[in-house]
Amino acid sequence: MIRIGIDIGGTGIQIGVVSEDYSIIKEGSIPTQKDLPFEEQVRLISECVVSTVESAGFTTQDIESVGVGIPGIASAKTGEVIKCTNMGWFHVPFREVFSRFLDKPVFIDNDANVAALAESVIGNSAGTSSSVFITIGTGIGSGIILNGKIWSGAHHIGGELGHVIFDLDGVPCTCGNHGCLERYCSATALIRMAREAVKDQPESMMMALAGQDPSRIEAKTVIDAARAGDPVAVKVYDYYTDCLAQAVASVVNLLDPEMIVFGGGVSKAGDFLLEPVLRKYPQYVLFNDQPLPPVKLAVLGSEAGIIGAAMLS
Amino acid sequence: MIRIGIDIGGTGIQIGVVSEDYSIIKEGSIPTQKDLPFEEQVRLISECVVSTVESAGFTTQDIESVGVGIPGIASAKTGEVIKCTNMGWFHVPFREVFSRFLDKPVFIDNDANVAALAESVIGNSAGTSSSVFITIGTGIGSGIILNGKIWSGAHHIGGELGHVIFDLDGVPCTCGNHGCLERYCSATALIRMAREAVKDQPESMMMALAGQDPSRIEAKTVIDAARAGDPVAVKVYDYYTDCLAQAVASVVNLLDPEMIVFGGGVSKAGDFLLEPVLRKYPQYVLFNDQPLPPVKLAVLGSEAGIIGAAMLS
Repeated sequence: MIRIGIDIGGTGIQIGVVSEDYSIIKEGSIPTQKDLPFEEQVRLISECVVSTVESAGFTTQDIESVGVGIPGIASAKTGEVIKCTNMGWFHVPFREVFSRFLDKPVFIDNDANVAALAESVIGNSAGTSSSVFITIGTGIGSGIILNGKIWSGAHHIGGELGHVIFDLDGVPCTCGNHGCLERYCSATALIRMAREAVKDQPESMMMALAGQDPSRIEAKTVIDAARAGDPVAVKVYDYYTDCLAQAVASVVNLLDPEMIVFGGGVSKAGDFLLEPVLRKYPQYVLFNDQPLPPVKLAVLGSEAGIIGAAMLS
Repeated sequence: MIRIGIDIGGTGIQIGVVSEDYSIIKEGSIPTQKDLPFEEQVRLISECVVSTVESAGFTTQDIESVGVGIPGIASAKTGEVIKCTNMGWFHVPFREVFSRFLDKPVFIDNDANVAALAESVIGNSAGTSSSVFITIGTGIGSGIILNGKIWSGAHHIGGELGHVIFDLDGVPCTCGNHGCLERYCSATALIRMAREAVKDQPESMMMALAGQDPSRIEAKTVIDAARAGDPVAVKVYDYYTDCLAQAVASVVNLLDPEMIVFGGGVSKAGDFLLEPVLRKYPQYVLFNDQPLPPVKLAVLGSEAGIIGAAMLS
């Protein structure tokens, strides 16, 4: 038997044929076409599922289940997509309509949640029953796994660690509020901190790496310069990892999962990111004389979305 | 059959004989004696259980279970109290030793967690399967109920909403960190904000209510003056309820429980507290075009500790 994992993104929809031990056998994709009617969008997805399955040498009879990761709000219970701006979906009965085209068990959940699930089953957090997966990219995404299952809340709007208040009346956020956690812990935050620092310290290596154009400083610029020992970058990065450590401690103080997993672009810094966070975060935990959760790197990368969707049941 | 609920406090240990429908039939108590040996402390507790049961007209044969709420860290799984400063207990096998004196099923958990459980079964959050109980007193206590059960984390150190970072590099906290949520949302925070405000505005009614002595301003002083329309108190209270609203929104963004329940001293303000929090908090929620959890008042008061302990199983 095979499972189908579908990862709905802003520009494309990735479809994966996944084996019972959760490896991707074959992938297919179609472009995201927001302007088509809902039923037509679903029909095209189902057709791509069938063609991908057949190109992998299977038939639809081999499909055990179809799982979909939605960039938005989805009810795992009712199969309804409540809000998915990328697709123009608002309160659409996804499961019901998909089943008309392909009569298989269909499961849906939020995309960050399914990625968290994938990591908790076959990633670095495999074997844990509780974990929090934090994606450090343009924003901060997160997925919470408790008792081996996705926790998305009573109204499917939980798991948004990036928008927990972290700095009262602080930096304005894209969501309209001030001081959201992602304003201090995302790649965007690291870039902001660096660009501010080079205003007064243009001698920083970061400026050289960015061709003397502060607007070309990226997260990698800061990390590379900090690794090389540039004092300005070291100071910026030290403050940034301190923010991340306080974010991790907040998760521990509230949820105390077995493990915390970092994914997303900034996590590519590897041990250069993990080491300072692990060293600093216990000081911010209330009961820090107790065993504390390790922080590890995600291993599945962009495949986590497809694999996690295929794991839904 | 009866259940025993034990609430261990800093000055006394309350023991309740609880009926099957969770009403307290009879209460007994002994003083907290930190300096006695552990086994002697447990023996005295078990003796008080027996005498309270008998004074209620039952025998120990009628006891179905014994539950204990611990002000500290306790492992529901192993029955070990990991840390309870009030009693001088560190890594003591409570369940095992208690069972020697009284051979009944013994369950233990953190005291804020058992209070949250009690509220979620017979309080205002009855009927919900997920809720977050927030005690607004000297500090901020909290208990998390998910899928009808206490969530205290993998190392029993979760549920500490009061120490989530809320204001980066902010007001120093008793825990040693800066900017913990309870520095902005507790009764202590409200008092601090009021005392600061009257420095520049001694004409405030709060000063009159406090006999012109700022150190005598309490949470009730601010609330009474704000109710009466004193402009200084109104402004302080408005800022305070805004902080509480952002705390509630953070809980919703991360956990999205079915309901949030306020207990503790400040919650005695009733609708005067709930109304501004309910009005303000949705603006700080990311997906605030969705149904959001109501915020209600706790109803069990100080009995929640005994009743919740008796509910443990």
